[in-house]
Amino acid sequence: MRVVLIGAGNLATNLGKALFRAGHEVVQVYSRTEVSASALAAVLKCGYTTDVAAVEKEADVFILSVKDSALPSVAHSLAEGREGQLFVHTAGSMPMDVLPTARRGVFYPMQTFSKNKEVDFSVIPCFIEAKEEGDSQFLKKLALSISDTVYELDSEHRKYLHLAAVFCCNFANHCFALGAKLLETHGGIPFSVMLPLIEETAKKLYKMSPREAQTGPAVRWDENVMDKHLQLLSETPDIQRIYQLLSQSIHDDQL
Amino acid sequence: MRVVLIGAGNLATNLGKALFRAGHEVVQVYSRTEVSASALAAVLKCGYTTDVAAVEKEADVFILSVKDSALPSVAHSLAEGREGQLFVHTAGSMPMDVLPTARRGVFYPMQTFSKNKEVDFSVIPCFIEAKEEGDSQFLKKLALSISDTVYELDSEHRKYLHLAAVFCCNFANHCFALGAKLLETHGGIPFSVMLPLIEETAKKLYKMSPREAQTGPAVRWDENVMDKHLQLLSETPDIQRIYQLLSQSIHDDQL
Repeated sequence: MRVVLIGAGNLATNLGKALFRAGHEVVQVYSRTEVSASALAAVLKCGYTTDVAAVEKEADVFILSVKDSALPSVAHSLAEGREGQLFVHTAGSMPMDVLPTARRGVFYPMQTFSKNKEVDFSVIPCFIEAKEEGDSQFLKKLALSISDTVYELDSEHRKYLHLAAVFCCNFANHCFALGAKLLETHGGIPFSVMLPLIEETAKKLYKMSPREAQTGPAVRWDENVMDKHLQLLSETPDIQRIYQLLSQSIHDDQL
Repeated sequence: MRVVLIGAGNLATNLGKALFRAGHEVVQVYSRTEVSASALAAVLKCGYTTDVAAVEKEADVFILSVKDSALPSVAHSLAEGREGQLFVHTAGSMPMDVLPTARRGVFYPMQTFSKNKEVDFSVIPCFIEAKEEGDSQFLKKLALSISDTVYELDSEHRKYLHLAAVFCCNFANHCFALGAKLLETHGGIPFSVMLPLIEETAKKLYKMSPREAQTGPAVRWDENVMDKHLQLLSETPDIQRIYQLLSQSIHDDQL
């Protein structure tokens, strides 16, 4: 398939590489930032531009992978002169109808992407949606060429999926960051000692639900331990408040 | 070594099995609950008792692995008639000096244990401490017989380590639980779709710090997305509050 990639951020980079490896032709990369555009184009062995007017007029699909806040305006300026083309975006939190073209859709690979960390796309669940049935079939085929897990999902359900992903990824990761900060501040133990614990916490979920897997002072409602922990956090009231709320929520979850 | 195991909970069960496999002799299991004591004793091919008075009088080490709140009283009643024996506990959050015997110590394997999920003990970091130098050497040897990663750590530093572990394990896991609940309530998608995302979130930490690994709306401070998420959570104000605090904390962490 001939793909135009609009955007050269973390997601666009990883998706572009996966499409390239699967034998698709990425014909062009567009990004406002020349250094990002040229770097990704070099990897994908294709042209690039930083000028909307110079973007290709025709392709099998235009994949828009830009910041959510920039998406409506970028989509509108691109739509001019490309009315019959298929536009899809990759944003979990945005409805399909933010795109102005008649042929529109969504291609949401649910993963946490960093530019300098390659991911195995085949295990990433991809959620697709399209306005027209033919485009839906096309997107499904495209998704299955790079991933083993493809779901059709409408915008309404995708909102909640994306929110759930924020909890499972960003918020869980921030708990790791808060743990790392505690070790840094109170000495001497490298964060790497936490990695087996974190890995096991993730692995357990293949055997039981997170609710069943829960351990620790909050699920036992061990107020003695929790009070001591809150005291240790007395100099960081924001983190202390997070400790309180999460502990209460763990407790409520078991009722 | 000859070990008496006081307690038959998740940690005691996993530790007992690891010691048994490493060739140590667990001579007896004590638990208040007969069903737990007998089940673990059967696995460890040893005797058991539910009566403190019937606990062995002599062993190389008595490992007390009971609820933090029960630890002081259990330790005190056991100490009578076993004054010269080495007592250690396994609680990350408790100081060594909660034990009344002259020869006392701590053997804290930092992991999340569930009875019905076996763990590979060799990758679990064990943190040890002892009042007497000879006992410290003994515990180090015992720990190294079942784990590749052994640290000496005093009670003051262990408090923070344990608190960090609550964030990295229990609180992160609760974020998974909140994600699972969102999927359950808003339809149709099994929680298993989150597993590749969760696994990647954990794996990234082998390459970069959690702060560097962070992605998502809060780190980009994408208020448009965050406002939509807060609206989706309007019927669960406690979870909405958690969303706000964690997002703010992610943002602050990047400053």
